Amino acid sequence: MCRWLAYSGTPIRLEELLYKPRYSLIDQSMHSRFGVETTNGDGFGVGWYPVDGPGEPTLFRGVGPAWSDANLRELARSTMSPLFLAHIRASTGTPVQQTNCHPFRYEHWLWLHNGSIRDFHRLKRDLVLAVDPELYPFMAGSTDSEVMFYLALTYGLRDRPVAAVERMAGLVESVGRTHGVEQPLQMTVATTDGDKTWCFRYSSEGHSRSLYYSTAISALHQLYPENERLRRLSDETRLVVSEPLADLEGAWQPVPESSYGVIQKGDDELGRFEPAVP
Amino acid sequence: MCRWLAYSGTPIRLEELLYKPRYSLIDQSMHSRFGVETTNGDGFGVGWYPVDGPGEPTLFRGVGPAWSDANLRELARSTMSPLFLAHIRASTGTPVQQTNCHPFRYEHWLWLHNGSIRDFHRLKRDLVLAVDPELYPFMAGSTDSEVMFYLALTYGLRDRPVAAVERMAGLVESVGRTHGVEQPLQMTVATTDGDKTWCFRYSSEGHSRSLYYSTAISALHQLYPENERLRRLSDETRLVVSEPLADLEGAWQPVPESSYGVIQKGDDELGRFEPAVP
Amino acid sequence: MCRWLAYSGTPIRLEELLYKPRYSLIDQSMHSRFGVETTNGDGFGVGWYPVDGPGEPTLFRGVGPAWSDANLRELARSTMSPLFLAHIRASTGTPVQQTNCHPFRYEHWLWLHNGSIRDFHRLKRDLVLAVDPELYPFMAGSTDSEVMFYLALTYGLRDRPVAAVERMAGLVESVGRTHGVEQPLQMTVATTDGDKTWCFRYSSEGHSRSLYYSTAISALHQLYPENERLRRLSDETRLVVSEPLADLEGAWQPVPESSYGVIQKGDDELGRFEPAVP
Amino acid sequence: MCRWLAYSGTPIRLEELLYKPRYSLIDQSMHSRFGVETTNGDGFGVGWYPVDGPGEPTLFRGVGPAWSDANLRELARSTMSPLFLAHIRASTGTPVQQTNCHPFRYEHWLWLHNGSIRDFHRLKRDLVLAVDPELYPFMAGSTDSEVMFYLALTYGLRDRPVAAVERMAGLVESVGRTHGVEQPLQMTVATTDGDKTWCFRYSSEGHSRSLYYSTAISALHQLYPENERLRRLSDETRLVVSEPLADLEGAWQPVPESSYGVIQKGDDELGRFEPAVP
Repeated sequence: MCRWLAYSGTPIRLEELLYKPRYSLIDQSMHSRFGVETTNGDGFGVGWYPVDGPGEPTLFRGVGPAWSDANLRELARSTMSPLFLAHIRASTGTPVQQTNCHPFRYEHWLWLHNGSIRDFHRLKRDLVLAVDPELYPFMAGSTDSEVMFYLALTYGLRDRPVAAVERMAGLVESVGRTHGVEQPLQMTVATTDGDKTWCFRYSSEGHSRSLYYSTAISALHQLYPENERLRRLSDETRLVVSEPLADLEGAWQPVPESSYGVIQKGDDELGRFEPAVP
Repeated sequence: MCRWLAYSGTPIRLEELLYKPRYSLIDQSMHSRFGVETTNGDGFGVGWYPVDGPGEPTLFRGVGPAWSDANLRELARSTMSPLFLAHIRASTGTPVQQTNCHPFRYEHWLWLHNGSIRDFHRLKRDLVLAVDPELYPFMAGSTDSEVMFYLALTYGLRDRPVAAVERMAGLVESVGRTHGVEQPLQMTVATTDGDKTWCFRYSSEGHSRSLYYSTAISALHQLYPENERLRRLSDETRLVVSEPLADLEGAWQPVPESSYGVIQKGDDELGRFEPAVP
Repeated sequence: MCRWLAYSGTPIRLEELLYKPRYSLIDQSMHSRFGVETTNGDGFGVGWYPVDGPGEPTLFRGVGPAWSDANLRELARSTMSPLFLAHIRASTGTPVQQTNCHPFRYEHWLWLHNGSIRDFHRLKRDLVLAVDPELYPFMAGSTDSEVMFYLALTYGLRDRPVAAVERMAGLVESVGRTHGVEQPLQMTVATTDGDKTWCFRYSSEGHSRSLYYSTAISALHQLYPENERLRRLSDETRLVVSEPLADLEGAWQPVPESSYGVIQKGDDELGRFEPAVP
Repeated sequence: MCRWLAYSGTPIRLEELLYKPRYSLIDQSMHSRFGVETTNGDGFGVGWYPVDGPGEPTLFRGVGPAWSDANLRELARSTMSPLFLAHIRASTGTPVQQTNCHPFRYEHWLWLHNGSIRDFHRLKRDLVLAVDPELYPFMAGSTDSEVMFYLALTYGLRDRPVAAVERMAGLVESVGRTHGVEQPLQMTVATTDGDKTWCFRYSSEGHSRSLYYSTAISALHQLYPENERLRRLSDETRLVVSEPLADLEGAWQPVPESSYGVIQKGDDELGRFEPAVP
């Protein structure tokens, strides 16, 4: 399907995560190890917030493979950010076009998704009808992922993010059942307002796509005192990824099935994710 | 807005109309004389039927300007067709992507449009809801033009084309009024099933984009007996265009306001176009 | 590196070889089994001759991955040809752009290549200087493959193809040695004038990229009398491929190391390939 | 041909010059008023230096029209720079591909060009041969503009920029004469090392493409004391453009025929440009 990462913490250059690690996201675009598809060459996107405060994120999205995009390499080298989402796409059927590339943005929120809504073409109309008519005109592409975003916005993403995503998931499952699609939802999702970041791992069949978060940096400092790259990162720095970027023992924890995490100042949260019919 | 042409008659190479005339469609992509916009560089498309019978048309659509597309030039040189539609796009706001390029295709039907639905982002949801749910999943892009096509299909384009387009126009105007958009529809349209071709010129304000059809070839033969290009064309050959391809006196007739024409074996038809609330 | 195929024989639709086989060329663009790279997503190209006689071939080349190209799928469905070359690219360093996509064309000749010239950036200037100044302006891209084509043209490809390619290879090895590159050439090549097709397998180190040709169709007819697809093909139909398109036992023969083959009316030829300093 | 601008001074967001002025560069991509071509839709590029010191510039170049590029709009909104070059291209024959988009970069130098070398395809080989063999491998595209850059580098651009460009021009004219091309060179050029910027206006026939530089900001402050946009700019801020971005009387001075200017700390320079055979 797709691969993604969400970074939050000490401002770093995008290339530190997109290009430099052994199994960087760009490397995964050609050779994913954990994905359903080994090739994620159907477009890509990065959304980043500026170093000086939340502000509106900047989007850079392309329709070619990430591995050969000269502009992405340029921007990754010159852009610093304390909070960014990046995504490489393997289409599950919808066209390869910029409006279908993640992350999606609404106001200062970003959203990205790995997975799919099964039989989306049959469920799409009912799902789209449930989107707030005020929000409807802002949907620009044709993916299940973008519809999920606008459903979550409809259900209050900006106020109570976890509950909103649970209602979105509940609706997808309810509409799926109506159409005889038993296990319609497969997702890992990251969404952020530029301050906090929420990550979700869930699937109707209880067998979700992989998702990992980085161990507390302080613990890694003790394990790898000589690692220069780790030393520059603050204790609050966090990384959530579809698959580990490097084989650094103890560095990665799987996100449990049917759960969500919140990355924020102070202690992070981890909770159980339960779809709720809206 | 856009520029287009519809050809029906003696099989010819596409380049005869796309590249060779003085004011060819490709020339118009950079320097339109009659268009609202002089530049039509937001993608292009050609749909052609094979020489041996109606069959399914082939689509070739691109997102760059037509004037620099090397593949289009290659195909135009090598492809013969007795019936084809071609379009160059000037976006009225929706993204430049292949799924927004004309012609659109459903089964063996093609459709293309010049003009727009005013305030489409506000009217879109109501219009899309009126599309037959069975047809809904086939809409792939985000233009007003494609929604118009699927509305026409919903209202019976395949059985009674003129009535179906009139009901589509009636719906657009009705939905427009509901939202306080007084004159929502501006269109020239061509649609074909590979046998007959229907062309429409209409706008809510009674001041529609230009549209011309070629004079009977037999008359042109008499006027220009020495013209080699004309001599090869059968009497039933017809061309409908957004703007004349050459300054050949007597060769072009404006399509009247609020009217439609049918290009077919035997006599063509010309009739009055009247939107009808569905 | 890359994958390619050359077809000659009974006119067929391009899709029969590009899309339908189990391990079709388009399938190989994402999952090559025999290639140095499993992904060949850096552009593609097809060049085909018309059904009615040699004539000038038509080129269709794109910079995105072949697997998601909607136009390629359309054209492959509607285009018949008795002789065509197709190529999917995995760049060895030169940019992903249309002028670097194979096949390359000069007059009515086509050329495609899998492999590389080692340290091409160091050897390029000397190689380019050896191209006939009359031919120099026709080189449009920046690949080693295109320079090899123009060197072969310089050495008489149009008159004595095998000798010309041998001199090209001899020059590459000679220039390589001058610059301390011991084994500079790695290649499988196909070239055609629209009538005959020449294929080459060679590398300086005697360990060349894979290349296979189809067994005589008559033998396959006997082995698989019930195979509908085979039955329609004439005895003179031949296919040369980077890797087999299907696991049909007895259907594929490896082209030997350091050899060339000629596909033509009457008996094919197979000979030893020996680089010759020009 | 093309349109370009070079900015140096108080750090500003790129969009201030690329999008906001009445006749912004992006506006000129569709409707140039002073250009030989009114449409400049064959790609674009921006190269900018970071706010904190010279450093290496970042390049962003695209092959579609600038007016519809969503990424350019995003980056222009979020990127601040004290020194940048921007270019919109109208091809004079060479392919529309990223390696042909300006600015070109070598080390920390940028180069862009409006104009052409007449009959470039005939002169190209001799010109390319004059490029330092050490620099030769860095030429990635196929334009006259890039060859001019590498010739200037060959003749000492990094040490004595004006003399190097004069020798480049001298070579082009000398090679032109050899091939019977009387007035081969037409150019406005900007090049920068991230500190100083050099601009050139010259043509063999003494009738060069238009070029303007901004009047001293201090003078403009007096003329337009209420202009908010001007007030924020330092006295040393300079802008050089193919055509004025707005009708602000007294704001623009034409660069004289056959001359060069240097934008730098302290007083700028203006001198006579005289090609010199190298």
